[in-house]
Amino acid sequence: MPDYKVPLRDFDFVMSEVLGFEQHYASLPGGEDATPDMVKAVLEEGAKFVEGEIVPLNRSGDEESAQWNDGVVTTPEGFKAAYDKLVENGWCGLSQPQKLGGQGLPSSLNTAFYEMLAGSSLSWAIYPTLTWGAIETMAAHAPEELKANYLPPMVQGLWSGTMCLTEAHCGSDLGLLKTRAEPNEDGSYSLTGSKIFITGGEHDLTENIVHIVLARLPDAPEGVKGISLFVVPKYNVNADGSLGERNTVSCGSIEHKMGIKASATCVMNFDGAKGFLIGAPNKGMACMFTFINESRLGVAVQGQSTAEHSFQGALAYARERLQMKGVPRHSPAKPADPIIVHPDVRRMLLTQKAIAEGGRMLNMYCAKLVDLKHGGTVEQKADAEQRLAMLTPIAKGFLTEAAQEATKEGIQVFGGHGFIREWGMEQLSRDVRITAIYEGTTTIQGLDLLGRKILPGDGRLLTLFTKEISDFASQQLDNPELASMAQALIAKVELWQSLTGELSQRLQDAGPNELNSAAVDYLMFSGYMMLGYFWLQAAAVASKAEGDFYTAKVQTANFYFKRLLPRTTSLAETIRDSADTLTAMDEDAFVF
Amino acid sequence: MPDYKVPLRDFDFVMSEVLGFEQHYASLPGGEDATPDMVKAVLEEGAKFVEGEIVPLNRSGDEESAQWNDGVVTTPEGFKAAYDKLVENGWCGLSQPQKLGGQGLPSSLNTAFYEMLAGSSLSWAIYPTLTWGAIETMAAHAPEELKANYLPPMVQGLWSGTMCLTEAHCGSDLGLLKTRAEPNEDGSYSLTGSKIFITGGEHDLTENIVHIVLARLPDAPEGVKGISLFVVPKYNVNADGSLGERNTVSCGSIEHKMGIKASATCVMNFDGAKGFLIGAPNKGMACMFTFINESRLGVAVQGQSTAEHSFQGALAYARERLQMKGVPRHSPAKPADPIIVHPDVRRMLLTQKAIAEGGRMLNMYCAKLVDLKHGGTVEQKADAEQRLAMLTPIAKGFLTEAAQEATKEGIQVFGGHGFIREWGMEQLSRDVRITAIYEGTTTIQGLDLLGRKILPGDGRLLTLFTKEISDFASQQLDNPELASMAQALIAKVELWQSLTGELSQRLQDAGPNELNSAAVDYLMFSGYMMLGYFWLQAAAVASKAEGDFYTAKVQTANFYFKRLLPRTTSLAETIRDSADTLTAMDEDAFVF
Repeated sequence: MPDYKVPLRDFDFVMSEVLGFEQHYASLPGGEDATPDMVKAVLEEGAKFVEGEIVPLNRSGDEESAQWNDGVVTTPEGFKAAYDKLVENGWCGLSQPQKLGGQGLPSSLNTAFYEMLAGSSLSWAIYPTLTWGAIETMAAHAPEELKANYLPPMVQGLWSGTMCLTEAHCGSDLGLLKTRAEPNEDGSYSLTGSKIFITGGEHDLTENIVHIVLARLPDAPEGVKGISLFVVPKYNVNADGSLGERNTVSCGSIEHKMGIKASATCVMNFDGAKGFLIGAPNKGMACMFTFINESRLGVAVQGQSTAEHSFQGALAYARERLQMKGVPRHSPAKPADPIIVHPDVRRMLLTQKAIAEGGRMLNMYCAKLVDLKHGGTVEQKADAEQRLAMLTPIAKGFLTEAAQEATKEGIQVFGGHGFIREWGMEQLSRDVRITAIYEGTTTIQGLDLLGRKILPGDGRLLTLFTKEISDFASQQLDNPELASMAQALIAKVELWQSLTGELSQRLQDAGPNELNSAAVDYLMFSGYMMLGYFWLQAAAVASKAEGDFYTAKVQTANFYFKRLLPRTTSLAETIRDSADTLTAMDEDAFVF
Repeated sequence: MPDYKVPLRDFDFVMSEVLGFEQHYASLPGGEDATPDMVKAVLEEGAKFVEGEIVPLNRSGDEESAQWNDGVVTTPEGFKAAYDKLVENGWCGLSQPQKLGGQGLPSSLNTAFYEMLAGSSLSWAIYPTLTWGAIETMAAHAPEELKANYLPPMVQGLWSGTMCLTEAHCGSDLGLLKTRAEPNEDGSYSLTGSKIFITGGEHDLTENIVHIVLARLPDAPEGVKGISLFVVPKYNVNADGSLGERNTVSCGSIEHKMGIKASATCVMNFDGAKGFLIGAPNKGMACMFTFINESRLGVAVQGQSTAEHSFQGALAYARERLQMKGVPRHSPAKPADPIIVHPDVRRMLLTQKAIAEGGRMLNMYCAKLVDLKHGGTVEQKADAEQRLAMLTPIAKGFLTEAAQEATKEGIQVFGGHGFIREWGMEQLSRDVRITAIYEGTTTIQGLDLLGRKILPGDGRLLTLFTKEISDFASQQLDNPELASMAQALIAKVELWQSLTGELSQRLQDAGPNELNSAAVDYLMFSGYMMLGYFWLQAAAVASKAEGDFYTAKVQTANFYFKRLLPRTTSLAETIRDSADTLTAMDEDAFVF
């Protein structure tokens, strides 16, 4: 099987042709350095880096796994050398502020680079990722003296970051967390407690690890309103920024997992570890949500990029594997044709392709909004924040679920060989499984979308998109290549609005279980709608251009509208069903 | 997490209350020994055996895996001891003829026992399974002297069987196979070639291994019409039935797989190995199809039983794990409620339950038909064969796909813990992945259903069921508990017939790609229909009885009709779409 290649042609299509990134960067304050030539160079160099350094580590990393021995975590062979090159080449600071030593390019370029990294090896890509969220959280909330010492080495990638939320008894429900932070006389805090599922909590890649930790101050209110945010370094940091003594935070063990085995998922024990409050006391959840939301967008990219990798693998196999005769024959001189001729094999491949390429458009659109949230005008910021509020759970929830399907089809195209480790398709399916769970399960994304974003504010957020989608689709009705897709989308937008209105009414009439009952199906419905919007945009661009690439784009859009978007019909039926169907059964009656 | 328990209450419901097994056994020639007391005793003893001996091997078997060393395959610790107990207790011969040393009970009882085995440990359960198919194939086609020596030890389980079809270059397309069989002077044959993916091709559980092998005679016609069937023992068998020299068939390696790691999946090399022709020359595929079809029903049981196991695990966790507050509160004294109170968690659990219990009804119905195919009157045999022709691909294809979803939801209910190996949920998802691939992928099942079973003969096979389902549903319309389900089913049956007619027309008008294009969605549609029929039957029985068990059955049926059957609406849309959507793209245009 050929190795994963960065789909540079498609990045160009998505960024330049569909989403107007050239104009976006030209008008973005701080985006002036991101000239078309610079963007092209960054993407090409990024592709070279990941194809040369990261792709070869994916399989071996899975076989070897991260290892724990008496508190020390060792990453698989080659991981450290590749990480060092990442740092040397300045990739860690690609989108970090120049004043901190970064290159100051727009964060959306880092998103594109991140797709390449995660597509090459999800396990590997997770190590540098969380640092970016930790930097942003500290930049927004930490006192200046902490920032001065911590941020430059974090921006360079010499130190890494983590996100310490989950405890054994609380994952989705962080209000239950118990880790305590006692004030010390010097203004610092002593943290005591145990955190689980800490990605990169301990490893051998960086000189220091900076934990961003949720904990409770003494006498803090119960629940989420009594949670504060702390910085706890693995090694204490001297006043001059040099590393001091080892802090009393340690890795008690790492998890043995289904996938992303080379990524160390740690139990982190805080035994009176020295930490620093960042942000206001008891306001930790709000501070953390910046981190969480951007991480969720990152996980959406993980799902989508793994779907791309699986698509490439399945496609290569489908072109080579000879089995059964096609109609018409493809290679009459051979005893059988390559399986890509069979419609059902194409159905699987096109499903993968529509998810990977459609997801790329959604993710890069979100990345563009993040640029604007950080650097746009006041109006652009406000608009971007609203759009991201709605799109973050959709991108995270929908694309990671779609990626489960895409990687499953990747195995299926290979038949029995897909189940064999050496072909790599099963690893992609195991690795991607976590993306629908961490940073908030699909259920949590559904509840966030419907309960916090859509239904409050009388559906104003939804209208932002539905009007735009309908208007855009209406403009395509005269194009014979696009008319049936545009019509379908207009009809589905009306259905989306009706369903939302009905749910709002049911929530009022019958209470919040109606929301919980419909949330995941509503999330999936919304995901299919957003991808439909982007596929129509892609088709609109492509229908005006000439060449095989563009023909294939229109064909993929057509596939999406004919074979995937129809799933919304059934989702509408189940969304409309009452919560009673789910709540009726006595909990003791599930088994006898 | 509590261990898997055999759902004895549900076996009783399905067999005695829904499917009328008491009357079935009473009227079945040779079924007279299967009295209600005997059936009860077999099921209870079976449950004791699997819970005591097999369940404890599931996790350790996965961690340890089967090991290959210089041609010798070692099963994980405890596998051999448990296998010896299986043999000692006579389980291998449960449904084998008494004249061969078996107990002579109906084969459907063995299906029930097999659900327990496979639900306990899929990896382990696969070892004894294939022997049953090999026995049946030899009993039907082998010459008497072979049967006399081979069958008694196979029936006892002292020897095991395999099914050697696949070669490196051919899986679904067996017409391409190359293994050769040269006649020897003594009437035997020398087989030369290499087979892959041979389940249990080598292991340490039995004294001998009997390979049923597809190979080509000299000058055989090309393709599937030139394939013959052979028996090739690991140890040659002397005239008195004792074991002779080692035959020249050996295990070159075993696969490293995503799941069922304790099951040895072997590369088997035949180096002039001594074999015996069974059945007529060049008629091997027809002979093998008995074996293949029964194996497919076995794989359907594997999928369904693993869904049951996953459901039990998720349910136990959902009852214990406290997270978020329910509406109304479940445990107001505690900081959070068990997650089983949340509607979306129930959606996942009920999906698993509806698949596991609905699948049990479908599988046991097929098992009843197999009893009739072997032992019924001439009319019963003919009817059973027709029904099995249609139901085999549905049970195999649909239930193994549904099992993918059920085990995925099992992980999802556990959240992050579902991804951790020690909880066992991820293993179930990995193990079950193969069931949608081996013994014919879902694509192959879809093509078999639509292209070989439904469309030929003008849909006569389909009518057999659609009339029965409509008639049954019509009889339920007066029951207010069942009326809406019955109405839904009647409407869907009409849709099923329409879709079938349309497909038949499209096949005539536009050629076989239309069939290939729609096959998998049609298979899934048909699966939802059959499970709907069985859930309506279950609800009809339950609505006449009193007690929590029966209330829950009606509620699960209601869930099935409200939340799962609606998927047929979208499937109908995609079935109706033309193959052009799939065939349009140039094969070089999938990526650039």
